[in-house]
Amino acid sequence: MNKIDSAGHSIHFETQLAPLTDIIKSGKYSKIFVFADGNTSQLCLPLFQELLGDFQAFDLIETDPGEENKNIDFCIGIWKTLLDFEADRKCLMINLGGGVITDMGGFVASTYKRGIDFINIPTTLLAQVDASVGGKTGIDIDNVKNMVGAFTLPQAVFIESGFLKTLPKRELLSGFAEMIKHGLIVDQDYYKMLKKSDYKKISSDAIYRSVEIKNKVVTEDPHEKGIRKILNYGHTIGHAVETYSLIHDKNPLTHGEAIAIGMVCEAYLSSNNNNLSHDELIDISNYILTTYPKYTIKEDSFTDLLAFMKSDKKNENGQIMFSLLSSIGTCSINCSVTENEIKESLSYYNIINKNIAND
Amino acid sequence: MNKIDSAGHSIHFETQLAPLTDIIKSGKYSKIFVFADGNTSQLCLPLFQELLGDFQAFDLIETDPGEENKNIDFCIGIWKTLLDFEADRKCLMINLGGGVITDMGGFVASTYKRGIDFINIPTTLLAQVDASVGGKTGIDIDNVKNMVGAFTLPQAVFIESGFLKTLPKRELLSGFAEMIKHGLIVDQDYYKMLKKSDYKKISSDAIYRSVEIKNKVVTEDPHEKGIRKILNYGHTIGHAVETYSLIHDKNPLTHGEAIAIGMVCEAYLSSNNNNLSHDELIDISNYILTTYPKYTIKEDSFTDLLAFMKSDKKNENGQIMFSLLSSIGTCSINCSVTENEIKESLSYYNIINKNIAND
Ligand SMILES: NC(=O)c1ccc[n+]([C@@H]2O[C@H](COP(=O)([O-])OP(=O)(O)OC[C@H]3O[C@@H](n4cnc5c(N)ncnc54)[C@H](O)[C@@H]3O)[C@@H](O)[C@H]2O)c1
Ligand SMILES: NC(=O)c1ccc[n+]([C@@H]2O[C@H](COP(=O)([O-])OP(=O)(O)OC[C@H]3O[C@@H](n4cnc5c(N)ncnc54)[C@H](O)[C@@H]3O)[C@@H](O)[C@H]2O)c1
Ligand SMILES: [Zn+2]
Ligand SMILES: [Zn+2]
Repeated sequence: MNKIDSAGHSIHFETQLAPLTDIIKSGKYSKIFVFADGNTSQLCLPLFQELLGDFQAFDLIETDPGEENKNIDFCIGIWKTLLDFEADRKCLMINLGGGVITDMGGFVASTYKRGIDFINIPTTLLAQVDASVGGKTGIDIDNVKNMVGAFTLPQAVFIESGFLKTLPKRELLSGFAEMIKHGLIVDQDYYKMLKKSDYKKISSDAIYRSVEIKNKVVTEDPHEKGIRKILNYGHTIGHAVETYSLIHDKNPLTHGEAIAIGMVCEAYLSSNNNNLSHDELIDISNYILTTYPKYTIKEDSFTDLLAFMKSDKKNENGQIMFSLLSSIGTCSINCSVTENEIKESLSYYNIINKNIAND
Repeated sequence: MNKIDSAGHSIHFETQLAPLTDIIKSGKYSKIFVFADGNTSQLCLPLFQELLGDFQAFDLIETDPGEENKNIDFCIGIWKTLLDFEADRKCLMINLGGGVITDMGGFVASTYKRGIDFINIPTTLLAQVDASVGGKTGIDIDNVKNMVGAFTLPQAVFIESGFLKTLPKRELLSGFAEMIKHGLIVDQDYYKMLKKSDYKKISSDAIYRSVEIKNKVVTEDPHEKGIRKILNYGHTIGHAVETYSLIHDKNPLTHGEAIAIGMVCEAYLSSNNNNLSHDELIDISNYILTTYPKYTIKEDSFTDLLAFMKSDKKNENGQIMFSLLSSIGTCSINCSVTENEIKESLSYYNIINKNIAND
């Protein structure tokens, strides 16, 4: 149980990077680059070097941390750096960081000289359980998320829980939302197991199970034509709430915090428009609201939120589409919902949130 | 003989765009964009519209003509324009122009929202016989050619000789060099046929044959690991001469003119280092030098030329690699040659060029 086979490559778990050492020592590559951000070069590079042992022959390419730097200007900078280093088509890029680094590094690698090999070592929980699988790379343009990118596969992925030790709790909680989602959309038992666990002490088994679930879904539908859309559960409303918060809140929601809110709202829609039972709705709401910090979706933001949902790149022909639960552990795609129902679901979140606060 | 099947798509010949009308009318696409440059929007769009008949529902995205605009700034402009037009993942981009338009349009389409469909309608001879096949897209960074790009396939390609009517003679001659190359590397009979023809009146059959040859080669080796390298014949030296001329000459060589020079030099290397016979060397030299305008490779440019060759992205580990003829119609890859021999081949071009001028 230390490897999952994904399209054309392996995802290695808790191997202390041993297979990576082999890849590097094979001599297949003319040069090795490690791509990291200011945080991961400080906090993750030492462990990376320790695990690789005597091999130290790489050049470090460092970028500023944060989503705001996942943009085309930084890409141009990295392409030029590779040029300056005289990187040829046989070099290897190792992306060491969270989803920003693996998304942007993957895009840069897959387009430099029409594609060089890259390997991802995700160092956040979110990047390990979500960004690590599915071949999506991307960058933002004018703050529109992932507006440019490619479907492209790494040579390998290495998931090492050791890197998570320095990750702030809030970042752990952010990635944990995707794990809850994995349980809700395809595996009731996994959801139950997560409910009993502590997000601050995630087990390797749970990470493995999340990767396994996501890998199964994306392997069936690599280009997001159908079943893969179940992974959007919580994200239609969640993304809108996240975008709004980024613009308006002093201390904006993380991705996972916003998705947690989205999952409560979309559970409401699931019970209204799909077969999710009332008890299941209450179960999901209670669990999420007691796990995640309180937030209020302001009444006067509803119009903006709907506008964000309409401009989501997943829509076609202007229709807002949802993936909704039919029970805990099963999910339907392409559900359409009226704007009024969406607003109701936002109000539902606020009301139940307040009630739980009053407990 | 009006269709060639390439990896996952068809190249249509002289169909008056009838299959394109069907594709558009199928209703598969939410929006249609035509991407053109200032010249092709003037000179090719009218014929395009005439052929498509009553269908006119597309938005035009226009860019400035010329290689200097095949860059990341223009890409960003096009991505943003697509965003402004609210282009979703189900839209179609039709690239109507020379290799600059099909290369850049293909790159933009294959990365916008991680990939939308595109169709190429090459309108220069070079783009029809060369850029039309093989799935390469790309743009220049800091004037380094095709430094960023992807291997990605169009939905279809349409080759219509009608578009060539407005193409300047010098551009015809530029594309013709690639056709001569196709004959030299794999088909002696085709080379002989071309020798008897007039580049100003290229037959559809010849274009078809060139596309067929290139398609066969790239289908065998889509990612340029081996046999595809024979297409580089004439290009190792040719590219260097082209780059030098772009920087130093008032009226720089076209790509094809430079490749023609490269083919003479590399024919010399082929007779020195491979099995090309002396008679064949003379035959190639005579034919090319009487077809293409005179040029002198300045003695004091040799060092720069070698430096350009060394920085070519096709090299590995700093070795300059050649594809050399073993006879007219057969070509070997991965031939290494000393710097002195390369200089000799440049001098050979100058000498034989002068002799022919004296005839
Ligand atoms: N490709 C996909 O399928 C996919 C899926 C989900 C998310 N994403 C993308 O991932 C990004 C979000 O990922 P993220 O949350 O990992 O963002 P991130 O990369 O910005 O990481 C979050 C923060 O944690 C820091 N960090 C990373 N590893 C650390 C460690 N081990 N210790 C201490 N600090 C560390 C980073 O420097 C950053 O400040 C978004 O851009 C999103 O679009 C992609
Ligand atoms: N993808 C590939 O496999 C491949 C192969 C070869 C070349 N290329 C690329 O192609 C580019 C060169 O192609 P090109 O020579 O077609 O360049 P181009 O697109 O710049 O066209 C040359 C000129 O002809 C004009 N033009 C185009 N069609 C016309 C028409 N029908 N009538 C009048 N004028 C017309 C253009 O506006 C331009 O000014 C280079 O960037 C090169 O890297 C790509
Ligand atoms: Zn998410
Ligand atoms: Zn060429």
